[in-house]
Amino acid sequence: MTTTLLSSAIQMRLTHCQEKMNTLLKQYLPPDNQTPLFNAMHYACLNGGKRLRPLLVYMIAELFDAAPEQLNPLAVAIELIHCYSLIHDDLPAMDNDDLRRGKPTCHKAFGEANAILAGDALLTLAFEVLANERSYPIKNQSTILKIIHLLAIAAGPQGMVYGQAFDMAAQGNSLNLEELMQMHRTKTGALISASVQCSALATGKASENDLVDLQKFGQALGLCFQIQDDILDAQGNSEKMGKNPGDAKKHKCTFVTLLGLKQAKAHALHWHQEAQTSLDRFKNKALPLRSLASFFIERSM
Amino acid sequence: MTTTLLSSAIQMRLTHCQEKMNTLLKQYLPPDNQTPLFNAMHYACLNGGKRLRPLLVYMIAELFDAAPEQLNPLAVAIELIHCYSLIHDDLPAMDNDDLRRGKPTCHKAFGEANAILAGDALLTLAFEVLANERSYPIKNQSTILKIIHLLAIAAGPQGMVYGQAFDMAAQGNSLNLEELMQMHRTKTGALISASVQCSALATGKASENDLVDLQKFGQALGLCFQIQDDILDAQGNSEKMGKNPGDAKKHKCTFVTLLGLKQAKAHALHWHQEAQTSLDRFKNKALPLRSLASFFIERSM
Repeated sequence: MTTTLLSSAIQMRLTHCQEKMNTLLKQYLPPDNQTPLFNAMHYACLNGGKRLRPLLVYMIAELFDAAPEQLNPLAVAIELIHCYSLIHDDLPAMDNDDLRRGKPTCHKAFGEANAILAGDALLTLAFEVLANERSYPIKNQSTILKIIHLLAIAAGPQGMVYGQAFDMAAQGNSLNLEELMQMHRTKTGALISASVQCSALATGKASENDLVDLQKFGQALGLCFQIQDDILDAQGNSEKMGKNPGDAKKHKCTFVTLLGLKQAKAHALHWHQEAQTSLDRFKNKALPLRSLASFFIERSM
Repeated sequence: MTTTLLSSAIQMRLTHCQEKMNTLLKQYLPPDNQTPLFNAMHYACLNGGKRLRPLLVYMIAELFDAAPEQLNPLAVAIELIHCYSLIHDDLPAMDNDDLRRGKPTCHKAFGEANAILAGDALLTLAFEVLANERSYPIKNQSTILKIIHLLAIAAGPQGMVYGQAFDMAAQGNSLNLEELMQMHRTKTGALISASVQCSALATGKASENDLVDLQKFGQALGLCFQIQDDILDAQGNSEKMGKNPGDAKKHKCTFVTLLGLKQAKAHALHWHQEAQTSLDRFKNKALPLRSLASFFIERSM
């Protein structure tokens, strides 16, 4: 298959996943049109997100021939955590962004208090969804607890929150490559990697060796994603990405400001290759995941 | 026993619980003196909190003769959630408080970004602690999931976050008694009530009828606590409580501004009586809990 065909196949999967997630999220969110808090939650979750993490969850399920509906609560919980993190990252005290996906950020639309609270609510709701035994088709309770534990670690003070605090502290300072990688492994990589791990666990069919290789895959994919983000940002794709202004313009250290465009692209390719290699044990079954990994560094949005 | 003796017995229990929680929280928090984020988490958790919710957890355990150490992760998780909520409530976009327990609020000491992130981190850590099978002595995984689910509901968009959003939206507006009760049932009452429910569940020894009466107890105790808070606030105890200025001065609707001091006290007594009545089935074993309920409306801090 050519690159274009691969990309268009993934694009179709993404579109399908976006529609599915919009439907699912509406089912799990509190009803809208009741309070500004609930409206802010809907606004932040149903604003045209790419749904890359849920697609990853469903593709990992396919790898182990698990029924996709079994993974719905996990996909919803991970997307709720992702959406909460975007609301809080955009706040005036953080990145102070006015636009997200081409629309006013949550605090611009609903005020700062509602935005902070909507983020808090989405994060908490993620754990409510995961722990709800009645809605959860995974019968193994020990597995559900492991998933909650892994996701909390990925999202918490050693994971995503650590990365965001690192990012805030680093603004205006130069980082070395080691520090920049550490920041992105936690800020973006931890949740992407946890999506892979948790989905594999949820299927109940992944061996210890499968999990080890999928951990490598998730980590490589996370770096790949972030470096491509920096490249798009440097190339002025902010408008296409619905953001303004670019990270580089905010004096943030990025892979491009640190290494230059050419070296940044080489790094993205390196981690893309690592991601591909980590899928070897899954043979032909990994083809959709291979396409997704390629899409991660070919995307222009 | 006289009122004074009761209060001093509870005061001793509280002091002991405070020391125990300080030790436990240090074990569960990430190491301090490493990053501003971790320092902010320590600062917000180890700032002289009353630890009323953990004491409630341990007293419910005693009611069912459960070993107190079995309840440590639950007590820690609930206190982490409580501390996160205080950080976010104090933020400039929310109550804009400069002082908490007589010291600069977390955002005053560490900046807004670190305060928002420390709150996010504490909330997430609470679920990490609860889901950590290795540290959790409750062997029944179905019970742990129920506890996570109950706590997430109590803390989330239908519970504590709902109450805080209600509180923010209500500022400068008058509420009726029904609305004020609804606000406090969610903002303060939900977590107090969940502390009681989750502890009873965690012992594995509470019957359905026990749980029903303890739910009534938790809800009554929550209202009792909040009305007394409003009374202390109106009586100018802000200094003693380490806060400034009083809610009434911020044009918040309180039980005192709505009903007057005398009627507010009558309401507090009513809910105190409800709390006492709901303990009847536990006979003499409930004496410590009865003292705690009395302390809730006799406290001056």
